[in-house]
Amino acid sequence: MSLGNLSINLATVRQQFTIPQAVDACLAQGITGIAPWRDQVHATGLKEAAAIIRSNNLRVTGLCRGGMFPAADKAGLAAAIDDNRRAIDEAVELGADCLVLVVGGMPTGSRDLPAARQQVADGLATILPYARVHRMPLAIEPLHPMYAADRACINTLEQALDICDLLGDGIGVAIDVYHVWWDPKLYEQIARAGAGKRILAHHICDWLVPTRDLLLDRGMMGDGVIDLKAIRAAIEKTGYRGPQEVEIFSQENWWKRPGEEVIATCAERYLGCCLP
Amino acid sequence: MSLGNLSINLATVRQQFTIPQAVDACLAQGITGIAPWRDQVHATGLKEAAAIIRSNNLRVTGLCRGGMFPAADKAGLAAAIDDNRRAIDEAVELGADCLVLVVGGMPTGSRDLPAARQQVADGLATILPYARVHRMPLAIEPLHPMYAADRACINTLEQALDICDLLGDGIGVAIDVYHVWWDPKLYEQIARAGAGKRILAHHICDWLVPTRDLLLDRGMMGDGVIDLKAIRAAIEKTGYRGPQEVEIFSQENWWKRPGEEVIATCAERYLGCCLP
Repeated sequence: MSLGNLSINLATVRQQFTIPQAVDACLAQGITGIAPWRDQVHATGLKEAAAIIRSNNLRVTGLCRGGMFPAADKAGLAAAIDDNRRAIDEAVELGADCLVLVVGGMPTGSRDLPAARQQVADGLATILPYARVHRMPLAIEPLHPMYAADRACINTLEQALDICDLLGDGIGVAIDVYHVWWDPKLYEQIARAGAGKRILAHHICDWLVPTRDLLLDRGMMGDGVIDLKAIRAAIEKTGYRGPQEVEIFSQENWWKRPGEEVIATCAERYLGCCLP
Repeated sequence: MSLGNLSINLATVRQQFTIPQAVDACLAQGITGIAPWRDQVHATGLKEAAAIIRSNNLRVTGLCRGGMFPAADKAGLAAAIDDNRRAIDEAVELGADCLVLVVGGMPTGSRDLPAARQQVADGLATILPYARVHRMPLAIEPLHPMYAADRACINTLEQALDICDLLGDGIGVAIDVYHVWWDPKLYEQIARAGAGKRILAHHICDWLVPTRDLLLDRGMMGDGVIDLKAIRAAIEKTGYRGPQEVEIFSQENWWKRPGEEVIATCAERYLGCCLP
């Protein structure tokens, strides 16, 4: 068993490390995959971040994140489209496998979820040609239903894949176990995603019982109730063999520990809890 | 507009009122529907609670709750079945419209969600004949996916209705907007539930942004982002005309206010926010 197919989403150590520090800590563990967030890239500088990635021969399993389409007015929508084009440019510069999209919730004051979903579909259709020209796959990340109001109104794999089927090539899904593990149709929709070559990323962490915060209480693999091996087996059964990317937001636990310890724990748990 | 089709789930005032106190406060507002929880019934005494209900000509829109089937061993499963039979007896004694079922999550230590779901389906099949004999409809309440691990592994209307279709007559769904409002298939599944005469209850409250606690931060109708009128319109379009039942768990807000104020606010918001 090796760590060759493990990636660290740098949100996991965002309180501890800049990108250069995180890269050093990953390499010290033998981990050569990372997924940065745009604010982290901007803090380091896009060219500097790209140089670090190239010189260390790192795989960038995704850039987080584009999306956030719904807006209260046309100016807001246009700004979102512009920002997504910049995100595509940055993902290209970093050589990322995909641009991960958190599509956005309802504009403030709205109760019209179907309208927000239509804005998302329209926004995706608008940026997709640009992404195709630049050969940057767009990965819709369905988010857990508890984020439907304020973060992402695409909430199941089935819903995301229905949109992909409408839009055609160049777009797929990021399957984050935290968001989809509960879904009665999970295995059916993983098979569908794989058959359509729509799986662009596989994110891992765990669901804690109890979960004390809706956003910032994700667990380390093995500390919760998600059947990580079964989900990975289903994903691999479709032919997908890409990396597993650890993404943990944990205000009261992992964000408070030394970054080296966090990354070492990711490696240990990956080997122990995540390989079928 | 009248309050004739409004019911108060007594969890909404569980920190303030016993059943007799809650009934008095509801009647003072002109509200004649209630839905008690079993612990509240036991505190008052089953016969006394039934007498209060009959003498005041109240409609009991549901008894909360049966369910909680999955267990780690056969003794646990058998105990759950026994308890559900007692819950059916109590619902009959109270003249409830239905027994609401929160079906249970995974047994402690388990990561096998499909197995828990099978235990639920088996448990429902086991108690259904008893419920039929006693003419007590069983209402599966699909719970929000954030409760899949520890409270209910039936998490969408589609999943609940699939189980109903397998089991036949005498079982349906309680549609609680808090649990289902996010679902991309909501309106399609409401139509399906109505067509199959499966709608047994309609619970209302609101989803707050931000939501500060996974369990105890539900909002009063109108304070959140759920399109209550649209959902009610869809439910009525199927022919269902039953009560709307307010169920709010709110540790930091509504549970701290005087019960009379809470019930008066329920009435006001029902008239203003919930009628299509």
